[in-house]
Amino acid sequence: MKGKPIAAIVSAGLSKFGKLENYAGRELFAEAVYEAFERCPKIDPKKDIKAIFVGMMSESFEHQGHIAPMLSDWAGLLPAPAIRTEIACASSAAALRTGIFSLLSGIYDVVLVGGLEKMTKRSTVETTEILGMAADYPFEQWNGITFPGLFALMATAHMHKYGTTEQQMGLIAVKNHHNGALNPKAHMQKEVTLETVMASRTVAKPLKLYDCSLISDGASCVILTKLEIAKRFCDNPVYIIGSGHGSDTLSLYQRESLTSIKATRNAAKEAYNMADLKPEDIDVAEVHDCFTIAELIAYEDLGFCPPGEGGKFIEKGTPTLEGDLPVNTSGGLKAKGHPVGATGTAQVYEIYLQLTEQAEKRQINGCKIGLTQNLGGSGASSIVHIFRRG
Amino acid sequence: MKGKPIAAIVSAGLSKFGKLENYAGRELFAEAVYEAFERCPKIDPKKDIKAIFVGMMSESFEHQGHIAPMLSDWAGLLPAPAIRTEIACASSAAALRTGIFSLLSGIYDVVLVGGLEKMTKRSTVETTEILGMAADYPFEQWNGITFPGLFALMATAHMHKYGTTEQQMGLIAVKNHHNGALNPKAHMQKEVTLETVMASRTVAKPLKLYDCSLISDGASCVILTKLEIAKRFCDNPVYIIGSGHGSDTLSLYQRESLTSIKATRNAAKEAYNMADLKPEDIDVAEVHDCFTIAELIAYEDLGFCPPGEGGKFIEKGTPTLEGDLPVNTSGGLKAKGHPVGATGTAQVYEIYLQLTEQAEKRQINGCKIGLTQNLGGSGASSIVHIFRRG
Repeated sequence: MKGKPIAAIVSAGLSKFGKLENYAGRELFAEAVYEAFERCPKIDPKKDIKAIFVGMMSESFEHQGHIAPMLSDWAGLLPAPAIRTEIACASSAAALRTGIFSLLSGIYDVVLVGGLEKMTKRSTVETTEILGMAADYPFEQWNGITFPGLFALMATAHMHKYGTTEQQMGLIAVKNHHNGALNPKAHMQKEVTLETVMASRTVAKPLKLYDCSLISDGASCVILTKLEIAKRFCDNPVYIIGSGHGSDTLSLYQRESLTSIKATRNAAKEAYNMADLKPEDIDVAEVHDCFTIAELIAYEDLGFCPPGEGGKFIEKGTPTLEGDLPVNTSGGLKAKGHPVGATGTAQVYEIYLQLTEQAEKRQINGCKIGLTQNLGGSGASSIVHIFRRG
Repeated sequence: MKGKPIAAIVSAGLSKFGKLENYAGRELFAEAVYEAFERCPKIDPKKDIKAIFVGMMSESFEHQGHIAPMLSDWAGLLPAPAIRTEIACASSAAALRTGIFSLLSGIYDVVLVGGLEKMTKRSTVETTEILGMAADYPFEQWNGITFPGLFALMATAHMHKYGTTEQQMGLIAVKNHHNGALNPKAHMQKEVTLETVMASRTVAKPLKLYDCSLISDGASCVILTKLEIAKRFCDNPVYIIGSGHGSDTLSLYQRESLTSIKATRNAAKEAYNMADLKPEDIDVAEVHDCFTIAELIAYEDLGFCPPGEGGKFIEKGTPTLEGDLPVNTSGGLKAKGHPVGATGTAQVYEIYLQLTEQAEKRQINGCKIGLTQNLGGSGASSIVHIFRRG
């Protein structure tokens, strides 16, 4: 299937992201689904949607497992059968990849894929502990390390090996807050200066408050069809032309490197190969900035710049809205927010808007090829997708 | 694909089921995987297995999410990428169905699918609460009802509507304990009499202790290949010829009926249609007997007997080892045990043994067509697969 599209996106939806006290997770998912149907009136929800694949990280936030059929119900899509996929923060990218499998299998022709997380009902301590289940419990969390600490280890190693600076990481926060301020659905719509970032309190040295993404509520979805029927539903489908998935050890200490995520490199290789494209062909990307160091490492692992040069890449302004390869035009996990199960298909939502010229103040004119990269945990999972304007 | 195989099973593995205090979930999964590789020495684990799909219900038992890459690691299969699927107790049937999608998609050619649950570290109260997350929290568990209560409602409705008796349900327990006593991997290898079942204490009227399945630790797996390469790995593959999946409302009170599971009927319809077979073509089946009433209703929903006649079906002895359509030759969830995430592919393991004449004392001579039915929660999810001897 090299160089050929593997599926089409005919619509997408996103709930508001934020601390949404009055909404249950199922209601946020319904909000995202309704937007997708409003965008694409030719879809008959009951008749056309054959199955649902939905990512959610944790049953613990709402004390609710078995969400897949519940979301099919609350989105008004029963009897469409539903499966939940989970690989921590990359759960809805896994839903997308699974949905693609199901279309290519010939068993379904139209599926809805999405994700959900309702996080803000819990205290920060509880949330930290729930998120910690995405690390290796007996070897990591039990010993006291949580995610800011794991990514701080990577940041320290990157600084040590390549001379990367806290200021360079801070510039990623500044960029993503700038973009988020242009996104009406973002959790935090405010610009920040590098001074503010640098002066913010330390969370896990060298990561400061503004190096960390947000704890948010939110949901997202995408409607996928087999290629040959996409134009039945809309005139401007977006084509998925590459999909790649990598896994690595759950524990950070077992990895070959602390300065590069092997799962991302493997996922990117598979996706680029399937799309028959190179990093320089990408016009716009959404990458997994759970911490600023994660975005910096993603530049390198995705081949946007050579290893060790992520710091220079942001310093030169290449990934800004005005740069040659805008990254996280949505504001990213950093400013748009990070309801973990929703993040993967929320990234796809942004790329869908960009490739259909609907990204308003964030629009990258003339972009033709988009990429998403969604990380699970500290990098035991990574999924990359590549998209082409229809 | 009507009437044609969609994938091949070239091996399968099962850990011991039981209260296995000295083993973590990841170790049980490795035990199952190693058996699968021992059965099929032509597979080169590192070279041949391209991806893993694994079902687990709950992160809460071991305080461990993001298990998919961890299990790829502990099974020695990295860098094979891994995705967890979850639809409560049908999580590993969902892994199987997802694995089939991935093979039919052309993206992978050999995948390992399986499931896992490590339940006995928790107290009974904690386990009941964790399992309760597979019901609708705000509408069911919060109000105090747990799974024995939900299935007791179904049993009461079935008794009221059709005159089904507690003795008829008890006969299912007697049958499954008889079969389990012949299964060296079963959690509870002991026969029980109808008198013992009837005299056992009430859990949720009319369900008594012996109407309920077991809380167990265990793991299971199956190795799937594309059809055209199966004989590269073994001489007697088992072919998957039907796969069906149904979903319904999470809450029982919203359903059209309490005496029939619509998700199972829809899943069965899809699977029979794909296999181009009828219920009377099935030679041996593993069905989801989380409670005896669930097996009785499954007889009817799978078309083994007409609606309302499940009680007579067991009374006549049709589903016993000596009957015309042996059901749960493994001992079922009732006696073999029910580590929930492992159950779906554990059912497939038994059918694999039966169709390859490896079921020893439980062997159904000459069986050619097998069926599995795996339920999630109180029936919001149900998956049916149909298999043919190679």
